[in-house]
Amino acid sequence: MPELRELIRRKRHGGALDAAELRWLVDEAVAGRVPDYQLAAWLMACCFTHLNATETLALTAAFVGSGEQLVWNNVTRPLVDKHSTGGVGDKVSLALAPWLAAAGLALPKMSGRGLGHTGGTLDKLAAIPGFRTDLDQPAMQRLLDSVGCCIAAQSPTLVPADKLFYALRDATETVDELGLIVASIMSKKLACGAQHIVLDVKCGSGAFFPNPPAAQAFAAMAARIGREAGRNVACVIAPMEQPLGRAVGNALEVQEAAGLLSGGQDSPELRAACLELGVAALELVHGATADHGTLLLDLLESGAAWESFQRWVAAQGGDWAAFEHGAASAAAHYRQVTVTATSAGRLERLDALTVGLLACDLGAGRRNKEDVIDPWVGVECLAKVGDSVEPGQELARLTVMPQEPRTDEQLAAAYLAAAGFAV
Amino acid sequence: MPELRELIRRKRHGGALDAAELRWLVDEAVAGRVPDYQLAAWLMACCFTHLNATETLALTAAFVGSGEQLVWNNVTRPLVDKHSTGGVGDKVSLALAPWLAAAGLALPKMSGRGLGHTGGTLDKLAAIPGFRTDLDQPAMQRLLDSVGCCIAAQSPTLVPADKLFYALRDATETVDELGLIVASIMSKKLACGAQHIVLDVKCGSGAFFPNPPAAQAFAAMAARIGREAGRNVACVIAPMEQPLGRAVGNALEVQEAAGLLSGGQDSPELRAACLELGVAALELVHGATADHGTLLLDLLESGAAWESFQRWVAAQGGDWAAFEHGAASAAAHYRQVTVTATSAGRLERLDALTVGLLACDLGAGRRNKEDVIDPWVGVECLAKVGDSVEPGQELARLTVMPQEPRTDEQLAAAYLAAAGFAV
Repeated sequence: MPELRELIRRKRHGGALDAAELRWLVDEAVAGRVPDYQLAAWLMACCFTHLNATETLALTAAFVGSGEQLVWNNVTRPLVDKHSTGGVGDKVSLALAPWLAAAGLALPKMSGRGLGHTGGTLDKLAAIPGFRTDLDQPAMQRLLDSVGCCIAAQSPTLVPADKLFYALRDATETVDELGLIVASIMSKKLACGAQHIVLDVKCGSGAFFPNPPAAQAFAAMAARIGREAGRNVACVIAPMEQPLGRAVGNALEVQEAAGLLSGGQDSPELRAACLELGVAALELVHGATADHGTLLLDLLESGAAWESFQRWVAAQGGDWAAFEHGAASAAAHYRQVTVTATSAGRLERLDALTVGLLACDLGAGRRNKEDVIDPWVGVECLAKVGDSVEPGQELARLTVMPQEPRTDEQLAAAYLAAAGFAV
Repeated sequence: MPELRELIRRKRHGGALDAAELRWLVDEAVAGRVPDYQLAAWLMACCFTHLNATETLALTAAFVGSGEQLVWNNVTRPLVDKHSTGGVGDKVSLALAPWLAAAGLALPKMSGRGLGHTGGTLDKLAAIPGFRTDLDQPAMQRLLDSVGCCIAAQSPTLVPADKLFYALRDATETVDELGLIVASIMSKKLACGAQHIVLDVKCGSGAFFPNPPAAQAFAAMAARIGREAGRNVACVIAPMEQPLGRAVGNALEVQEAAGLLSGGQDSPELRAACLELGVAALELVHGATADHGTLLLDLLESGAAWESFQRWVAAQGGDWAAFEHGAASAAAHYRQVTVTATSAGRLERLDALTVGLLACDLGAGRRNKEDVIDPWVGVECLAKVGDSVEPGQELARLTVMPQEPRTDEQLAAAYLAAAGFAV
């Protein structure tokens, strides 16, 4: 094998590493034999000279090979993995996993915690008292058998290389190189073992990808890598200029997902997002053999999706009654701040990043890895882009910790910084 | 102060750091508070987006400020520092320092050890039994008073930041960014305290700079940084396509320098290189007030330069008689390999890098920091570029360790790989 320095030099000068070299680099790094500073220099060089498709495929394979790979021998339903690149108010997984389970698919999903303005699915589920996500494969298998879906914490035995590389990328401002992103995401999907992979690629203000070309480039590369690894991949590219749906905040998002499935409170945007991704998943599995959208709406209207949600929450240990009690208690005991319109107009902009950071600052997310999340705080966006508003109309409701030092006016101003109106 | 990550991000995206930020980065790094991997990422980003002149000046100042700075209060002669960027067979300092001391200048020089194909001045001096280079400032001062020159090992108390940055640059393939090179070299010159600085900038096959534009860019930036720090700077750009002069190897180079000064064996190329740099130094100090070249030649012919050399060697503890005895003994006991011409022709090429690496492999240099040098081995280039040679004529003489495993033919072939002939 060549020297590490030769690999850095080659990448710095725009050359490519072959599969054996990338596998060696990853294996040596995981074994602790690559100094952090050399890996950091290599990562920064990659940001300037980029990884080509062959390198990205090889790096992904090396990542997969760095740890355990799940094999699902005893699941008879088609196995589907759904992954979102993350956005503000993105609670799609909470509704879609049990919904698609009701449609006969099996969804063995692993998720992460949130950092910064995008929430993590695990943090949202943690709002449900008793909900357990530390599941090993037998536990996941039992949930697939009994419910058809599960959402587990990312296992440290899967793709340990990604954990190591990601921590270094995060510390060295080298996160946003396409090949590194694809290898990080796709290696976890491949190691998780589902035959069908649906990628929800968000782009815009509150998303990982700033614009459609960046999202398309990711989608194309991720799909190629997945297919070359023998999987079926579908990508949905979705704008994220404003938060997805109404709620931004952990319990509030769980409530929104549950409201959609139970019929208690519709969320048209969330419903549309779930339908688009759900249809993509069903077409991936079954082909365009039926009107999958109608099938999904039938499952919603019949209550089957809601029943699946409740079975799933209970099967992962969640106490739904306790959650509803807690949510009612928070509504009573937490400060509620109402943001109202001062004049008539049409909402033209509701910046997802600004709303996401506000929710994060209220305690719904982590600025730093050590921060503790309050499940009950958050933001409800009552007017969305395109809505006409009247003076005095409620634009948003903020649920705020009692000890929050800012005044109602300051908090309203922080929310209104995200909004733009046309008369 | 901003976060480290912000400094990396800014450099990655082509922004500039201000003087306070660079000083903070350097001070924090020296204090051990900058993780290696973040500094490595920053260095790699600098290689792609470069440091501008303002940043280079600020980084140089921050480097100088990271350690002790020598102040020469009691030296009445003009203080001159001469620095070469390094080349194959570059023994100029050995001859020029005592020669210029004889011309009334004071040369407080610090040097380093060699690595790879270019030899270090300290390694050459180590061939002289007893020669000491671990000198503190009082010892240097005494040498300037008594002899007018000294060559000391780089003090660890001067520019500790450079040692740290250089080790990381070396390990991460980020050595060749102009701003980092200039800061590294000029900070040591500035900290060493001489008012006048002469830079010998080599370019070509055996040199640090591959071509004249790279050498000129360095010279321009280094001169600018030196002048902005209030010093007088002269730069001489010299090609290094073939080795400088005859000898490549530690004792052999000392012999060549001594032969020039003593008149025992002229070395026209070494003489020309010393004269060019010596005149540059004298013009820097005195202006073009006299024919400095003739003055220097007078000092050579009168024996004053040779006398200065002997005084200097003795003052630093060197035993010249022991050196001459050792050289004679090596000539008798080491294997001598003669490389001869097989046909008539004109030598058109004698690749400095190839000769330098051959000498290094013979034991004259270090491939790795831990390698031990044999002072007596090396190469003497008896024909230089432009020389016409006859069949059977000696092209080179190799002095080889007795245990060298290669045959004479193999060693001759290794040397001839450096040479190109025209019929």
